[in-house]
Amino acid sequence: MERELLNVVGKPVPKRDAHYKVTGQALYIHDIKLPGMLYGKILWSEYPHARIVHIDTSKAERLPGVKAVLTGYNIPEIRFGFYKDNTPLKKGKVCTMRDEVAAVAATDPDIAEEAISLIKVEYEPLPAVFDPEEAMQEGAPLIHEEHGTNVLKLPWKLVAGDVEEAKKRSAYIVKDRFRTTWVTHCCMGTSGCIAHFDPEGNLTFYSITQIPYLAQRDFQEALKVLGLGDKKIRVIQTYIGGGFGSKLDTHPYEYIAILLAWKTRRPVKIVFTREEEFRCTSPRQPTIIDITQGCDREGRLTFREVHMILDNGGHTSWGSTTPSVMMMPISSLYRVPNVLYTAKCVYTNNTYCQAMRGYGNPQATWAIECSMDQLAEEAGIDPMEFRIINANQPGETTPQDFKISSCALKECIEEVGKLLDWKQKRGKRNGRGVGMASLIHVGGGARVYRSDGCGTIVKIDDFGKVQVFTGATDIGQGADTVIAQVVAEELGIPVEDVTVIWNDTDVCPWDVGVHASRTTFIACHSAIGATRKVKAEILKLAALTLGVSEEELDIREGMVFSTKDPEKKIELGKLLRSVHYRSQGQMVMAEYFYDPDTVMLNREFKGNFSKAYAYGTHGVEVEVDKETGQVKILKYVAVHDVGKAINPMLIKGQIYGGAMMGIGYALTEEMIFERGELKNPNFRDYKILTAKDVPPMEAVLIEPWEELGPYGAKGIGEPGCVPSAPAIANAIYDAVGVRIKDLPITPEKVLKALKEKEGKD
Amino acid sequence: MERELLNVVGKPVPKRDAHYKVTGQALYIHDIKLPGMLYGKILWSEYPHARIVHIDTSKAERLPGVKAVLTGYNIPEIRFGFYKDNTPLKKGKVCTMRDEVAAVAATDPDIAEEAISLIKVEYEPLPAVFDPEEAMQEGAPLIHEEHGTNVLKLPWKLVAGDVEEAKKRSAYIVKDRFRTTWVTHCCMGTSGCIAHFDPEGNLTFYSITQIPYLAQRDFQEALKVLGLGDKKIRVIQTYIGGGFGSKLDTHPYEYIAILLAWKTRRPVKIVFTREEEFRCTSPRQPTIIDITQGCDREGRLTFREVHMILDNGGHTSWGSTTPSVMMMPISSLYRVPNVLYTAKCVYTNNTYCQAMRGYGNPQATWAIECSMDQLAEEAGIDPMEFRIINANQPGETTPQDFKISSCALKECIEEVGKLLDWKQKRGKRNGRGVGMASLIHVGGGARVYRSDGCGTIVKIDDFGKVQVFTGATDIGQGADTVIAQVVAEELGIPVEDVTVIWNDTDVCPWDVGVHASRTTFIACHSAIGATRKVKAEILKLAALTLGVSEEELDIREGMVFSTKDPEKKIELGKLLRSVHYRSQGQMVMAEYFYDPDTVMLNREFKGNFSKAYAYGTHGVEVEVDKETGQVKILKYVAVHDVGKAINPMLIKGQIYGGAMMGIGYALTEEMIFERGELKNPNFRDYKILTAKDVPPMEAVLIEPWEELGPYGAKGIGEPGCVPSAPAIANAIYDAVGVRIKDLPITPEKVLKALKEKEGKD
Repeated sequence: MERELLNVVGKPVPKRDAHYKVTGQALYIHDIKLPGMLYGKILWSEYPHARIVHIDTSKAERLPGVKAVLTGYNIPEIRFGFYKDNTPLKKGKVCTMRDEVAAVAATDPDIAEEAISLIKVEYEPLPAVFDPEEAMQEGAPLIHEEHGTNVLKLPWKLVAGDVEEAKKRSAYIVKDRFRTTWVTHCCMGTSGCIAHFDPEGNLTFYSITQIPYLAQRDFQEALKVLGLGDKKIRVIQTYIGGGFGSKLDTHPYEYIAILLAWKTRRPVKIVFTREEEFRCTSPRQPTIIDITQGCDREGRLTFREVHMILDNGGHTSWGSTTPSVMMMPISSLYRVPNVLYTAKCVYTNNTYCQAMRGYGNPQATWAIECSMDQLAEEAGIDPMEFRIINANQPGETTPQDFKISSCALKECIEEVGKLLDWKQKRGKRNGRGVGMASLIHVGGGARVYRSDGCGTIVKIDDFGKVQVFTGATDIGQGADTVIAQVVAEELGIPVEDVTVIWNDTDVCPWDVGVHASRTTFIACHSAIGATRKVKAEILKLAALTLGVSEEELDIREGMVFSTKDPEKKIELGKLLRSVHYRSQGQMVMAEYFYDPDTVMLNREFKGNFSKAYAYGTHGVEVEVDKETGQVKILKYVAVHDVGKAINPMLIKGQIYGGAMMGIGYALTEEMIFERGELKNPNFRDYKILTAKDVPPMEAVLIEPWEELGPYGAKGIGEPGCVPSAPAIANAIYDAVGVRIKDLPITPEKVLKALKEKEGKD
Repeated sequence: MERELLNVVGKPVPKRDAHYKVTGQALYIHDIKLPGMLYGKILWSEYPHARIVHIDTSKAERLPGVKAVLTGYNIPEIRFGFYKDNTPLKKGKVCTMRDEVAAVAATDPDIAEEAISLIKVEYEPLPAVFDPEEAMQEGAPLIHEEHGTNVLKLPWKLVAGDVEEAKKRSAYIVKDRFRTTWVTHCCMGTSGCIAHFDPEGNLTFYSITQIPYLAQRDFQEALKVLGLGDKKIRVIQTYIGGGFGSKLDTHPYEYIAILLAWKTRRPVKIVFTREEEFRCTSPRQPTIIDITQGCDREGRLTFREVHMILDNGGHTSWGSTTPSVMMMPISSLYRVPNVLYTAKCVYTNNTYCQAMRGYGNPQATWAIECSMDQLAEEAGIDPMEFRIINANQPGETTPQDFKISSCALKECIEEVGKLLDWKQKRGKRNGRGVGMASLIHVGGGARVYRSDGCGTIVKIDDFGKVQVFTGATDIGQGADTVIAQVVAEELGIPVEDVTVIWNDTDVCPWDVGVHASRTTFIACHSAIGATRKVKAEILKLAALTLGVSEEELDIREGMVFSTKDPEKKIELGKLLRSVHYRSQGQMVMAEYFYDPDTVMLNREFKGNFSKAYAYGTHGVEVEVDKETGQVKILKYVAVHDVGKAINPMLIKGQIYGGAMMGIGYALTEEMIFERGELKNPNFRDYKILTAKDVPPMEAVLIEPWEELGPYGAKGIGEPGCVPSAPAIANAIYDAVGVRIKDLPITPEKVLKALKEKEGKD
C-alpha cells in the first residue's frame, strides 16, 4: 500500500451516520414497530438466592390484552452462556436479584407491566454469599450445587520463565493487593430486541448485538430445543446506542423474546427501562489482584506474578474469559522475562459480569501500573525512566509469544513526559502531582474464537457508486466510515460515493463480531481485498477500452487514466456503462473473506493471537484538595501508537471517549450492591462523567506504519480507557504521597488515606 | 444441464411467499409507515383539455397539518416519459382528466384530502379530441402544440419480402378491420410509494415498481433538476400486489412524492384509492387494426399486412413502444414470408396507456387469429388444419430474423384439437361451437433496452443455508421460488435452505426489470452462474478434505460425496465450518452477471432479440344464447410450449391467471370513457372475472427441452392472456355464424350481430 499520495485515508472524514443521529432519523430498536407487535415484560427475582416454591400466573393470564405468560415451568429448557449455566426463565431457584422468573407478552406495554404485577411468586430464601473470597471457603452456600464448588473449573494459568528463580535474582521486589469494583457501560440506548417467527417458522431477530453471526448460532441452538433446528435465522441490527462489550453475548431477555414470539406467533418486543439497564445487564468484573514484581539494579523487570480473583456472580457469561485477556498486559506490557499468573472466577449471588471495553485489561493494568510506580520508587528510579528502560520494542516476541511488529511505546512515554513537563513537575508532594501509565492491547484482531474472519461483498453501479456489504458491525465507533474510506481510497473515488451496509445477516457476509478492537484492522483488510478485485476488473476493462496495458492504469477522482499518458482516460461511470449496456454485457462485483494467519492461544495460553499490538501512555496532572479529598484533573494527555490513523478525527474521538470512561472508572463510577441488590440504578446516583466534566485533555497520535495493517493501521477501540486509573492513582501519590488501591478513588478514600498517613507521619 | 435425476427442478414447489401473504404478514406499501411520515394527495384535472388560468393554494396552505402545497408553478420542471412530454405537476395546460394539477403533503391523510379540496383552480377549457382517427385529421385540436401534429414521430414500420408481389400470387385474400378498447390491470394492490431524503440528500424510495434499477436511473435525472445529481438513490421494493406491466414506468405520482419529500425533508407517502387506481393509472392501448392476409391454394400463408392505429392518450409513456412487440406475432406467428406492418400512435385527450401483460401482443393476435379463421374459411380449409399447415418449426428463422430454437406450436394445436374433440364438434352452427387461436411470445428475455442482464450474488453459511441476492423482481409470479429451485438443484440442497433477496437496489445486483416474460430465463441463468462458482469452490474444498479429485465429487441432499466411492463423503455444513473456523479460514461466496448474446432490433426492426420463443394454443368451446347474446364457455383449454417447466404448479398458475385475464378481455372488461372521463372506475361497473367465473379449464404443458434455457426452460409470464379473445371469437363464429370484431364481445354486440345476420339471411 502506498503511504504517499493518500486521498481519503488519513483524512478526518465525519462519521457517515452523524446526520442521521443528530436529526433523530436513525432508527434505534426503540423506534421499530412491526404490525401486530406485542410487548414483552420480565418479572425479576425478589431474592439474591432463593428456591422458587410456586408461581401463580392465573391473574396475569386473565388480564385482557395478555397473549402469553411464561415461566421456567411452561417452556422447554434452553441453556446458554459460556458454562451453559443460565436459562431464559429460572426454574427451581434464583441465584441473583436479576434472575428472570416470569415473562408476559401483551398488546400494550402498560398491560404487560400490569400483568407482571399480577404474577405471584412464592420463594423460600436461601443463604447467600456476596464476597468471592467467602464463596471460596469450605461450607459457603453453593450457587450451582451441581459443580460442588463456587470456583469455576477454568484453566487460567500462565507460566513463562521461572518466577521463583527470578525472585532470587531481583534487587528490588514489591508486592501489593489491588481491587476494582463493578462499573457498567451506561449505553445511551437501553437494551432491547424484537423477535418474530415467519409463518414457516424462520426467525427474524431485530437486535442491537455486537455479534450478529454468533448470536445467530446461539439462537440456532435455542431453536433446536423448540424443534425448529432446521429453520433459518436472520439477525437485523438497528442503529445501536453504544456497545462497549455489553452486547458481546446473547442475553436472557433475548431468549425470552424468542420464546414469547414462538408462543404467540407474533412479533414481540422487549426494551429495558433505564433501571433495568442498570440492574439487569452485565457490568465489568470486580477483581482482587495480588501482584508481585521485581527488577534488577539497573531497573530491568525480572518477573511479574499476579493472582486474580474475579467475582463471577450468579451465572457465567463469556465474561468469564476475561482472564485470558488480562494475561496480555501481565505478560507483555513492558519487557518482563518471567511471568506467573493465575485467575479464579468465583460464583457469588451478585450480578454476573460481561465484556466491557478492554475486557479485563483495565483491571490488570490498574494493578501492573500502580505496582510499576511502587517498584520504581523502591529502586529509586524516576517512574518515567523506569518505564522507558522496560519499554517494549518493535520486533520482539513477548513471554506469551506475541510478535510485536510495530511498537512506539517508548515514544508514547516520552511524549507524555514532554507534554506534562514531567521533570519539572514531578516529586513536589505539594498537593499537585503528575502520573503516567501505559497499556498494550490487541491491535490486529484477536483469535479468541476459532475464526477471526470478516467477509465483504462490493458492487459498483453504472454511476460509479459503490455498495459495500461488510460483516462488521457499527456500534457508534464509525466502522462504516473507515471502511468507506479504504474502499474510496482503493478505487480512487469520493468517499460519499460509497455506501456501507452492515446490519443484516441475510445480506452481509460473516464476521465474528465487534470486539477486541478488531474492526478497523480486520474489516478494512477484508474490504480492501474485495475492492482490489473490483479495481483489477475495472482496469482490465479500461485497458481494453483505452488500448493500453492494465499495469499502467490507475483511478483517481473517478477517472481511469494511464499513468504513462494521462490523456488516455475514461470516466469510471462511463466505462462501467459501456461494458454493461451491450449484448453479453457485464457488471463489476466481487467478494472477499479475510482471516489473518494468527493462532488461538495454546494450552499454555501462548501464541500470536493478533496480527499487531497497540500501545499507548496516558499522563495526568492532578491537584488534590487535602481538606476534602477531592481530586481535580488539571491536565490529561493520551498518547497512542495507532499505526497509521485512517481517520484521525474518529480515532481521537475513540481516545477521548475512552479516557473519559477511564477517568470515571478511576474517580467516580461504582455500582453499589448491598446483599446483591443494586442501590444506585440511575444516573443521579451512578456517577458517569458528562461533557461538562471533561478536563483539559489532549489526544496525540503516534503513527508508526504497521506493515501488517490495512494502510498501516492498528485497532484502537478499547485502549483509550485502559491506563487512566493507574495514571491518576500515580499522580495522586505524587501529589500527596498516598496510594489508593481500590477503585474508584473517591474523596472519602483519599481523605481516609491522608488521615492515616498523617497519623503515621 | 442434466435432464435426468432432477431433484427440485420440475417439482411443484409452493410459492415461497404464500404463507406470508395468506397470513397477512407480507408488508405491502400500504403497510409501511416511517417515523415522521407525511401523506401526499394529488389534485387531478377537471377537464380533458384546458388551459390553467390560475391556481389558488392559499387556503390549503393555511390548513393546520399541511406541510407543503406544490403546483407546476412552484417547483423546478422535471420532464419524463418516453417522449419527455410529461411532468409531475402540469403547468400551462392539462391534456387529460388524469393530469396532476397540484399536490399536498400533510400529517394525516384526511387533512391532505381536505387541503386538496381547498385548492381552487381556474381553467379555460380547450377543444378536445377523443378519437385517434379524428385526431389525425387536419385542423384537429393539437394536444402538444410543439409537435405540430398529434401523430407521434415514431418509426414503427416492418417490411419483409414483398407484400404487393405476394398479393398477386395469392389464391385467397381476406381483409378486415378489428378493434380493441381500454382494459386495465386491476392490481389488487393499488399504486403507492414513499419518498424520503436522508439528511445528506440521498433518496430512499419505497416502491412497487417492476423496474427498480431503471426507476433509479429515472429518479437520478429528476434529482439532477433538484441540484442533487450526485446523490445516491436506493429503491426498496415492498411486496407488490400485482404488476402485469402497470409498474414498468416511473409515474407522475412518484415524482410528486419525491418533490413533496424534497420540500418537506420528511418521508412522504402517496397511496392511490381504488378510484384513483382506475382513473389515474395507464391501461392497455386501444387499437384500430386493419389486417389483410393471403394464402396459396394449399393454404400456405403468402403475406400479412397490418396497419395499426393506437390511441396514445394525452402523454407518452413507454407504452408507446408496444408497436415493436406487436411486430412479433405479425411477423412470426405462423410461417408468413411477406410482411408489411405500420403503426401510428396518436395523441388524444384520453387517458394515456402503458404496458399490460403481452405488451401489444393481445391486440395484434386478436386481429391475426380472427383473420386466420376468415382466411381458412375463404380457402375452404378447417382452421385447425390451416394452422398446422402454417405452424412454425424448430430451427427456422422468421421474417423478423428471430431464431426459433425450440418450438412445439404444431403439438400445441394438435393437443387443443384433441382436447376439444375438434373434428366432432366443429362446424355445427347449432349454438355451440369450438374455436382456437395461437400465440408466439418471447421466452428467452428480450433486448428491448441495451441491456437484458441480471446479476446474482450467492453466499452460503456454516449450516449450508444459502442467501441469493437477485436483481429479479417478484410481482407475485414466483420469481423467488424458481430461483430458489435452480439454486437448490445446482447445490444439491433442500429448497427451504435457500433465501432469495430481491427487493433493494443497494443490496441486489442490477436487473433491467420484470417484463417480457424474461425473469425465469434470465434470472435463473444468472443464479445458476453464481451458484456454479459456489459449487466449484465447495467441490475444490471437499476434494482437499476427502483426498479425491474434484471431478468425481457431487452434492446431493446436503452431502458432498464421491461418485466413485460413495463412502467418501462429508456433510456440506461440516465442510464449510471446517474451512471457516481456522487460521486463514475462508467462506464461500460468488457473484455472476448474465446477459445473453441477443441483439436489439435494428433500424429495420429485425434481429434476434430473445434467446428463445414460447408458443401456445388456446381452444374453447362456447354456447351462445341467441335470445340474450350471452356467451357461455363450456370448456377452455390452454396448451403451452414452455420448454422444461421448472415449477409446473407456478406455470399453470400463470396460465390460468393469464387465460382468465384473456377471457375478461374477450367478454367483459372495458373502461368506458365519455369525453375523456372514465365512467366505471370501480369493481362494480368494471367487470373483471372472479374465481366464481372460472369455466371448466385445463392447462397443458408441452415441454420441449430448450437447449438455450436454464434447465431447458422458457419464459411464460405473459402468453396465457394472449390468444383467448380470438379463440373465443372464432368459437362464437363456429357456434352462431357471427363474427364480432370489436372487443369486448358483449351480449349486446352478439345480439346485434345475430339480428343483422338474420336480416341478411
